[in-house]
Amino acid sequence: MNLPLGYAYASTYAGIRQAEKDDLALIVSGLPANAAAVFTRNRVQAAPVKLCRRHLKLSGGKVGAVLMNAGNANCATRTGDAVARETARAAARLLQLQAVQVLTASTGVIGVELDAGKIVKALPRLVAGLDPARFDDVARAIMTTDLVPKTAFAEVKLRRGTVRIAGLTKGSGMIHPRMATTLGFVMTDAHVPVARLRAMLKRGVEASYNRLSVDGDTSTNDTLLLVANGAAGVPAEARDLAKVEAAAGEVMRQLAQAIARDGEGARKFVTLEVTGASSGGAALKIARAIANSPLVKTAIAGSDPNWGRILSAAGNAGVAFDPAQADIHMQGVAVCRRGLAAPFSEADLKRQLDGAECEIRFHIRGKGRGAARFWTCDLTEGYIRINASYRT
Amino acid sequence: MNLPLGYAYASTYAGIRQAEKDDLALIVSGLPANAAAVFTRNRVQAAPVKLCRRHLKLSGGKVGAVLMNAGNANCATRTGDAVARETARAAARLLQLQAVQVLTASTGVIGVELDAGKIVKALPRLVAGLDPARFDDVARAIMTTDLVPKTAFAEVKLRRGTVRIAGLTKGSGMIHPRMATTLGFVMTDAHVPVARLRAMLKRGVEASYNRLSVDGDTSTNDTLLLVANGAAGVPAEARDLAKVEAAAGEVMRQLAQAIARDGEGARKFVTLEVTGASSGGAALKIARAIANSPLVKTAIAGSDPNWGRILSAAGNAGVAFDPAQADIHMQGVAVCRRGLAAPFSEADLKRQLDGAECEIRFHIRGKGRGAARFWTCDLTEGYIRINASYRT
Repeated sequence: MNLPLGYAYASTYAGIRQAEKDDLALIVSGLPANAAAVFTRNRVQAAPVKLCRRHLKLSGGKVGAVLMNAGNANCATRTGDAVARETARAAARLLQLQAVQVLTASTGVIGVELDAGKIVKALPRLVAGLDPARFDDVARAIMTTDLVPKTAFAEVKLRRGTVRIAGLTKGSGMIHPRMATTLGFVMTDAHVPVARLRAMLKRGVEASYNRLSVDGDTSTNDTLLLVANGAAGVPAEARDLAKVEAAAGEVMRQLAQAIARDGEGARKFVTLEVTGASSGGAALKIARAIANSPLVKTAIAGSDPNWGRILSAAGNAGVAFDPAQADIHMQGVAVCRRGLAAPFSEADLKRQLDGAECEIRFHIRGKGRGAARFWTCDLTEGYIRINASYRT
Repeated sequence: MNLPLGYAYASTYAGIRQAEKDDLALIVSGLPANAAAVFTRNRVQAAPVKLCRRHLKLSGGKVGAVLMNAGNANCATRTGDAVARETARAAARLLQLQAVQVLTASTGVIGVELDAGKIVKALPRLVAGLDPARFDDVARAIMTTDLVPKTAFAEVKLRRGTVRIAGLTKGSGMIHPRMATTLGFVMTDAHVPVARLRAMLKRGVEASYNRLSVDGDTSTNDTLLLVANGAAGVPAEARDLAKVEAAAGEVMRQLAQAIARDGEGARKFVTLEVTGASSGGAALKIARAIANSPLVKTAIAGSDPNWGRILSAAGNAGVAFDPAQADIHMQGVAVCRRGLAAPFSEADLKRQLDGAECEIRFHIRGKGRGAARFWTCDLTEGYIRINASYRT
């Protein structure tokens, strides 16, 4: 898969995290790019989130570069706003951009002062290292408890040529839907007007990041950015834009799934399908209630086909449905029909649940057409180990 | 502490659970007693819950006996309603009560048929064993993953004599507020009219069970029953009833706290105090968001004074407040002032957090007077171990 044209990437170690592993990264677009972004809905918002909102407004959605760091969330600190502003300005100077065309993103511990000096000092070597091929380095530099870097790619053939999409994201814990969760950056060399880009992002997020939960906790720093620089030089008409949107949506879905697969301590990737609900929103609520139930998630960890916990979790979704019309399948095997135990071999199903992929279908018989797909992971002792000692 | 007059208790092993440990219990009131009850708000309701609602309605709130079992929730099964009805009837016959004066309660696995025959067969020896002193045996027989039986007592001096209150409860996982959580039974020998009893229970639950969370999962079987048989023979006037209510409220608070203390895998009991919110409801939402955050609960498990997670969890409560006005104390030590790190010795606080009791205060500066107290526990690997293998 080819990377989109007109972007360059760099990463370096600026001494923000203790382990000597790259913690500062930069994405630059050679041409001024159109951008759309969604942010956390947490009441507590990190300084870089506030800066992004301000800069995108002032620039009319034009972006030249994104500066990001791991190891410190730059949130709930005395100097946070100044640090975000100062580092964005320093990057702008080196890249000969206006300050408002630089966005910032941070991930890491909350409430610890971030030293702007470390970043400003590392910027010249960061900029010097910019390279169109160093995409993976950025994905690696923003990892925190992530075990693997997370990227996704697409190529779209339009009538007048080909455009490319590349996305990278991070996230493993503090993952909860209802917003752009965690950090995510999707770049394309297609030309997409800002208004259309915003609509693409909104729909794309709804079907990807907003269908994802690891632990029900929502970060203060969540940022998802979609950038289109038009560097492919391919004019895009209405029909073409629909193709670009479909491909960008698929990239976002893959990134969201990669986060659930790499959930803190997770051994299993879980796909939930809810159908037959009174509306799409009702289906989503049921899916979310099942995905956020620690009892369901621990049963999956233990390969226990304990469908009673799934039914009980659905019953807590705050959605009206008749439990006596509920069917549940696990790994394609009917475990509950009309709210009652279906006959199945527990030993066989236990074996099937030992695999790395778990599929749960929850269907309500009747006239409802509401459906939702949702992704999560199992809850294991690994999650506890990671989070009981995150800072130490 | 003396037990309330006019009640008798019994327990036996009926073969419902595999381990040979008492799993069937009975509480009988010699005089017909007034009763008030609250039940789970889960959409999926167990057969005994439905039977209790029906019987309380038909009897006008009069109760003679409560039959309860552990090892099987009698929920989402083909024969559930018939099993509840048949066992209540069998108990009524032996106790010479009307069937509607017998209530049932079940706790255990969901979706497995409960064999009424086992219960009916065990009933004669259960009834034969009734004894006013066997209160603790009932508390023990309804335990599932509970490590300790949970009871609380009070004695109230009224103007014309003394009345007594005794409560027992069970619960360790699948514990979430917003309803009467788990099974709980509070008996008094005071005379309290049914309408007043209902009001007492409603207010008492709001300040006890509804302020409690272990894992955010809500059971299908939650039942809390308050019974007053008047056996003390002490007439109670308005002022007396206020005293009875205060004492019954205290008994319910102790029972709720005992559940959090015995949370599955819990090593620490956590008390949350939220003050300065715009209303009591807003304070409760913030407390609940903090109590349900796996990241806060794992940090407490690791004795990590990671107040950023507390602030972030509060930010997700769906309540408007200014994070820059938030103060956080842990174990009485200021860790966050006006949304920023306060100076404290991390080593000292870590040591203090190693204790079995953790206290978190979250205060919003300003004019808000909304306050809430909430109880929860830490989240440890023990929770995962217990729930990944519950049925096996």
